[in-house]
Amino acid sequence: MRAVADPDQRWIPWMRRALALAALADGHTSPNPLVGAVVLDSSGVLVGEGFHARAGQPHAEVGALAQAGAAARGGTIIVTLEPCCHHGRTPPCADAVIKAGIARVVVALTDPDPRVAGGGLQRLRDAGVEVISGVLEAEAAHQNLAFVYRVRTGRPWGVLKWAMSLDGRTALSNGASQWISGPSARSWVHRLRAQCDAVIVGGGTVRADDPLLTSRGLRSPEPLRVVLSRSLDLPDQAQLWDQSVAPTLVVHGLDAPAGARSRLDAVGVQRQELQACEPEALMAVLAQRGCNRVLWECGPGLAAAAIQQGCVQDIAAVIAPKLLGGEPARTPLGTLGFQAMNEVLELQGLQQQRLADDLLLQATLSPLSDPC
Amino acid sequence: MRAVADPDQRWIPWMRRALALAALADGHTSPNPLVGAVVLDSSGVLVGEGFHARAGQPHAEVGALAQAGAAARGGTIIVTLEPCCHHGRTPPCADAVIKAGIARVVVALTDPDPRVAGGGLQRLRDAGVEVISGVLEAEAAHQNLAFVYRVRTGRPWGVLKWAMSLDGRTALSNGASQWISGPSARSWVHRLRAQCDAVIVGGGTVRADDPLLTSRGLRSPEPLRVVLSRSLDLPDQAQLWDQSVAPTLVVHGLDAPAGARSRLDAVGVQRQELQACEPEALMAVLAQRGCNRVLWECGPGLAAAAIQQGCVQDIAAVIAPKLLGGEPARTPLGTLGFQAMNEVLELQGLQQQRLADDLLLQATLSPLSDPC
Repeated sequence: MRAVADPDQRWIPWMRRALALAALADGHTSPNPLVGAVVLDSSGVLVGEGFHARAGQPHAEVGALAQAGAAARGGTIIVTLEPCCHHGRTPPCADAVIKAGIARVVVALTDPDPRVAGGGLQRLRDAGVEVISGVLEAEAAHQNLAFVYRVRTGRPWGVLKWAMSLDGRTALSNGASQWISGPSARSWVHRLRAQCDAVIVGGGTVRADDPLLTSRGLRSPEPLRVVLSRSLDLPDQAQLWDQSVAPTLVVHGLDAPAGARSRLDAVGVQRQELQACEPEALMAVLAQRGCNRVLWECGPGLAAAAIQQGCVQDIAAVIAPKLLGGEPARTPLGTLGFQAMNEVLELQGLQQQRLADDLLLQATLSPLSDPC
Repeated sequence: MRAVADPDQRWIPWMRRALALAALADGHTSPNPLVGAVVLDSSGVLVGEGFHARAGQPHAEVGALAQAGAAARGGTIIVTLEPCCHHGRTPPCADAVIKAGIARVVVALTDPDPRVAGGGLQRLRDAGVEVISGVLEAEAAHQNLAFVYRVRTGRPWGVLKWAMSLDGRTALSNGASQWISGPSARSWVHRLRAQCDAVIVGGGTVRADDPLLTSRGLRSPEPLRVVLSRSLDLPDQAQLWDQSVAPTLVVHGLDAPAGARSRLDAVGVQRQELQACEPEALMAVLAQRGCNRVLWECGPGLAAAAIQQGCVQDIAAVIAPKLLGGEPARTPLGTLGFQAMNEVLELQGLQQQRLADDLLLQATLSPLSDPC
């Protein structure tokens, strides 16, 4: 983030408003970013507001300019992300800004999309529009963290979530785990799913827990439910096979038996074969499907593999005030192969939040394992 | 706690002062409780203050009355615990109060010691002294939680402490664990030890970590270092065998080999044989030695046994923002024998506190497993 020059300070309150507008569509714009915009007339009076509501629908600038109408001429548009300069599903916003007669564009974040990447601002400058960028840049980058990460790396931002007792157990030795955390924490997980484009489990979780994996209607459409199952050793009956509430994708390896494939096809579940049925390859598939943020809700083996393959950026651990005990009881992560304490993964930015009786801890994996 | 009648409200600020005085000796009075006292003259002016500094030294009332001298006559003494009525290492305080001509005694907590238990207040009333009790009773009970618990149950209050990674590991699979938590958390552990009368480990911890187990001088004398080792399979060289910094007691079973016994005797370590070499029996030994609060810093097997035998009242878990992973990696607790989620131990009053990068979680075991 560059320091904002003093004369730019006056745009900060308007940029906050634009960021708040952008946030209204949280969880609904993937693969696109969240974007908000406000338009002031030439005397500085608010004449238009807009935000990007959903991929395929108008961009934030277009809505705000339409609301402003002729009052935009000679005015200022404050927008959280650089206006685009390419034809996607909608025409370039930079052209719409120029056409509306806007005199000044104030931007928070340059679009990391290589099809834009400063090109939108350049087109505006070339047309004689004053451009101020970097206003609340860090806030805007944080708001679109997952989008920026996916555009830069070609992979979705991965969140690994688990619930455990105070002694670090995710289940009893016989597998019993319902419920370790309380109703507030489970509601929080529904809200977390609503911010993600896909929720991933392994075959073991389907067999053991028969989960539903939805946001319970907080997001529409529901996130894609993904099962990573090398050999398709999956039950015939499972809540995930009923796609009336949410779509389900099963990803498997080359050696998955034909019978298991056709059983899934018969119930209409989406199915995809991967040469290497691993978290890394799944991430490429999900990025191509437009997923910015994905949630890992899997068992310890798959979670450890996802971490080792760089597919986990954030950890969210719910800690319940309970003791489960037991040497064979299940713990959050399988082996990461460490032999010395100086090899272990360090997390950044640990934050805690109460969820009734439970505690939510969130932290980010160190930049060393984060190619962003 | 009974509701304090309105006229008693005026004593609350003085009782807070007495509680603050009592706290000055935190960690130094065992087996005695913390006690503080202030004396006001007949016009309500502060004329004396005192606190119990150490077992064998004068009680709080005696110091405060000595400071007040003749000004105590017709005055009020505000004291956090009921004045004693029995001859211990010092004469009964109730008699000293009467002798000083005090007209009114204001007390927070009735002494749970069966040798007192209201007898002190009765002796004062019989002598014509006005007695007001129950002022800030809950605060006083909390200040002397461990003393009250030990007097009522015959066992010290047990605190079980561990440090673990965010994924619930206390060591790597090869046993490496130094250091999971950071310097601030380790300093906090030294402060915790300073509030305890004994620190307990098993033989495995001595063999694996060769710990020092002191408060690093925060408490003088240092807490008693206790090793519970059924078979005396202990190293010849260990920091615990050097008693120049702190005393060490090794507790063992009947079948401990003679050679191991004599090796400990040769280095001058205290040794005690127990018929049943279990946490429960050790608690009786430590209560008899005047321990009010003990700290378990042991491995998962002994920790689970201590919990199962009702020897753990509080949990203190330091969580470091790290991921260790590993199916065979060590976790805080061994088996507790639970088969269903409705059997697991529920903790009360979960509290969190930051210790630099680490997080300290503290909670109390449910009253069901707490005979207090």
